[in-house]
Amino acid sequence: MSMRPPFDTVRWDDGVIRIIDQTRLPAELRFVKLKTVEEVAEAIQTLAVRGAPAIGVAAAYGVALAAHQSSPEDLLENVRHARERLMRTRPTAVNLFFALDRQARLFETVHPERLAAALLQEANNLLEEDLETGRRIGLAGLTVLPDRTPVRVLTHCNAGALATGGWGTALAPVYAAHDRGMNIQVWADETRPLWQGRRLTAWELAEAGIDVRVLVDGAAASALLGKKVDLVIVGADRIAANGDTANKIGTLGVALAAKAAGVPFYVAAPSTTFDFKTADGSAIPVEERSESEVLGDAPRGVRAWNPAFDVTPHDLIAGWITEAGVLKPPFKELRATGTGG
Amino acid sequence: MSMRPPFDTVRWDDGVIRIIDQTRLPAELRFVKLKTVEEVAEAIQTLAVRGAPAIGVAAAYGVALAAHQSSPEDLLENVRHARERLMRTRPTAVNLFFALDRQARLFETVHPERLAAALLQEANNLLEEDLETGRRIGLAGLTVLPDRTPVRVLTHCNAGALATGGWGTALAPVYAAHDRGMNIQVWADETRPLWQGRRLTAWELAEAGIDVRVLVDGAAASALLGKKVDLVIVGADRIAANGDTANKIGTLGVALAAKAAGVPFYVAAPSTTFDFKTADGSAIPVEERSESEVLGDAPRGVRAWNPAFDVTPHDLIAGWITEAGVLKPPFKELRATGTGG
Repeated sequence: MSMRPPFDTVRWDDGVIRIIDQTRLPAELRFVKLKTVEEVAEAIQTLAVRGAPAIGVAAAYGVALAAHQSSPEDLLENVRHARERLMRTRPTAVNLFFALDRQARLFETVHPERLAAALLQEANNLLEEDLETGRRIGLAGLTVLPDRTPVRVLTHCNAGALATGGWGTALAPVYAAHDRGMNIQVWADETRPLWQGRRLTAWELAEAGIDVRVLVDGAAASALLGKKVDLVIVGADRIAANGDTANKIGTLGVALAAKAAGVPFYVAAPSTTFDFKTADGSAIPVEERSESEVLGDAPRGVRAWNPAFDVTPHDLIAGWITEAGVLKPPFKELRATGTGG
Repeated sequence: MSMRPPFDTVRWDDGVIRIIDQTRLPAELRFVKLKTVEEVAEAIQTLAVRGAPAIGVAAAYGVALAAHQSSPEDLLENVRHARERLMRTRPTAVNLFFALDRQARLFETVHPERLAAALLQEANNLLEEDLETGRRIGLAGLTVLPDRTPVRVLTHCNAGALATGGWGTALAPVYAAHDRGMNIQVWADETRPLWQGRRLTAWELAEAGIDVRVLVDGAAASALLGKKVDLVIVGADRIAANGDTANKIGTLGVALAAKAAGVPFYVAAPSTTFDFKTADGSAIPVEERSESEVLGDAPRGVRAWNPAFDVTPHDLIAGWITEAGVLKPPFKELRATGTGG
C-alpha cells in the first residue's frame, strides 16, 4: 500500500478547503473550494463531503478556516461560532464531535497569536492520523479474510477512500489485499436513497482496478443466504460502549441476513468512532433526512420515512476492525490508551 | 368492498387486450392495447403488465387473442404457438403456467369451431375468479389484523389491484379494512430496482384514499425492529409444497427482520400460486434480469447482479392468506379441493 491515497477527499489548499464534490460522482470528478464556514457546513449537510472520518477532517479544517479569516480581535469568537455551526450539521457520526473537540481544546491552551496556525496544524494532524489509521485498519482487516480465491466481500454504503482522508475503513482491507496481489471481489449494495454504493464505492474500486459488482439493497439477503459472499465489512458512524453500531440505513438488515446465513459480519472503524459515553445503541441519535430524498416520482401527497442510519446490535457483529487490531467489547485496548472518542 | 375493483388492470376490449402500462405509473395512467401475441409477451417481459395473478390473466387473454385472429385452418397451431411463446416470458410466477394450462386443456376438449369463444370465456373466467379470490383474501386477511388504531402494515413490491385482475393479494386485506372504515396505514418498501412500491403501491393506495408512506428497502429492518409496524403482508410468485415462498427480491430480508422483531410476516396469495409439484424453495427457478435495471449511473465497466426474486423459507412465515382462509403447511385445504396450481 503506497503512502498516499488515490485521491484527496479533503485538503487544505492555500487558504481554502478543497473537497471532491461527492454528489457529482461518478458522472464527474469535480473539486470544489469551500471558502467560508457556512460553505463547509453546507457541504457536510448536503453530503458533498461525507463518511464519518472525512466529516471530522472537513470540520476541523472548517474551524481552521474561520481562524485564518479572522482579525485578532474577533478570532476567538469566530472559531467558537464555527465550531457551534459545524456541530449542528449532522448528529449521528461521532467523529465530527471528536474532531471539533480536538480543535476546541486549542482555543483554551494556545495563545491567540498562534491559534490560527495551531488549528490548521491540528486539522493536518487529523488528516495524517486518518491516513495512518486507514493503513492499519487495512492490515488488521487482512487477518479476517478467508483463504480462498477470489475473496468476496459484501459492503453497504461507502466506507472507502471517499469517506475518509485516506484509505477508508471498510474498504481499507480490500485495498490492502489488492495491494498484495490477492484476488478480491466486492459486492456493493447500491445503498438507497443516496446511492453511495452504486455511485461511490463502485467508482473508487473501479478506479483502483478492483472487481466490483452492484446489487440492490434488497438482494443482499439473497446473496448472503446463497453463499455468494464470504464476509461482510461495513463502516460505522458511531459505536456505543457495548458495541452496538450506527451505520448507514440498511446495515441492520444486512447484519440480520449475515447472521442467518452464518456469514461473518465485521465493522471497520477508527478508534475515534467509538463513543464510550454512550452505553448502548438506544442512546445514539439517528438523523432523519428530507422525505424528498426517498420520494422521487412517487405520487403527490405520499409521505416518506427517511432515517439516515440504523443501529446494529453488537451480538450480530463478529469483530470491530480498528487501527488497534480486530477487537471485541468491552474494547479494553481502546479504553486503556484513551484514544476512544 | 364494492363488486368492481377501482380500475381494470387487464381486460378484453373488442378484439384486443387493454392493459394499464405500469411502466408509466405514477406519472401517467396510460392504457395500451395489445394487438398481437408478441405484444402481450413483450408487455409481460417488460413488466408493463406484472404481478403473478395479472400475468396469468393477461397470458390467458393472449391465447384467446391468437384464436380470435386465426383462420379455422391455422387455429390450433396458432394457439399452441401462442401458449409456448407466453410460457417463455417469465419463469418464476406459477400463475402464468396455471392459466396457460387451463387454456391448453381446451385445445383438446373443445371443438375447433367453438375454441376461440371458449378460450375467451375461460380468460374471462380467470379474471372473474381472480376478482372473487381477491375479495376472499381480503376477508380472510381481516382476521390477522391486530385490534389497534391505526393498523400499520408493511409491504414489499406491489401485490395490489395492479398486480391482479381485481383487489390484489397483499393489499386485499388493506382494501377490505378501509372499506369497513378501519384506520389502516401502509408502509411501502420502495422496491428496487423497478420501484413497484414507490410507483405502484403508493399510487393505487393514494388513489383509494389510504394512508401510505414510502421507505427505502434498507429501512424496513429498522421500521420492524423499531416496532413502527404491526405486521407484514406480501404477495407471492410461487409457493412450494412446504411453504417456501418466492416473491420480489428483498422479501427475504424483510422476513428475516420481521422474525428478529417478533412482527408476524404473512404471505397473501390465491391458491393458484401454490405449486405442490415443487417440494421446496430450492427447486423454484429465479429469474435473473438485465444488469442495466440496477446500474443506472454506475461507472462504466461495473457489473451488477439482478435476481428478480428471492425465496423466503416457510419457517419465517406466520400464515398464508388465501381465498380458503389463513393456512399453514401442508395446506391440506388446497390439496383436498384440487385448486392448487
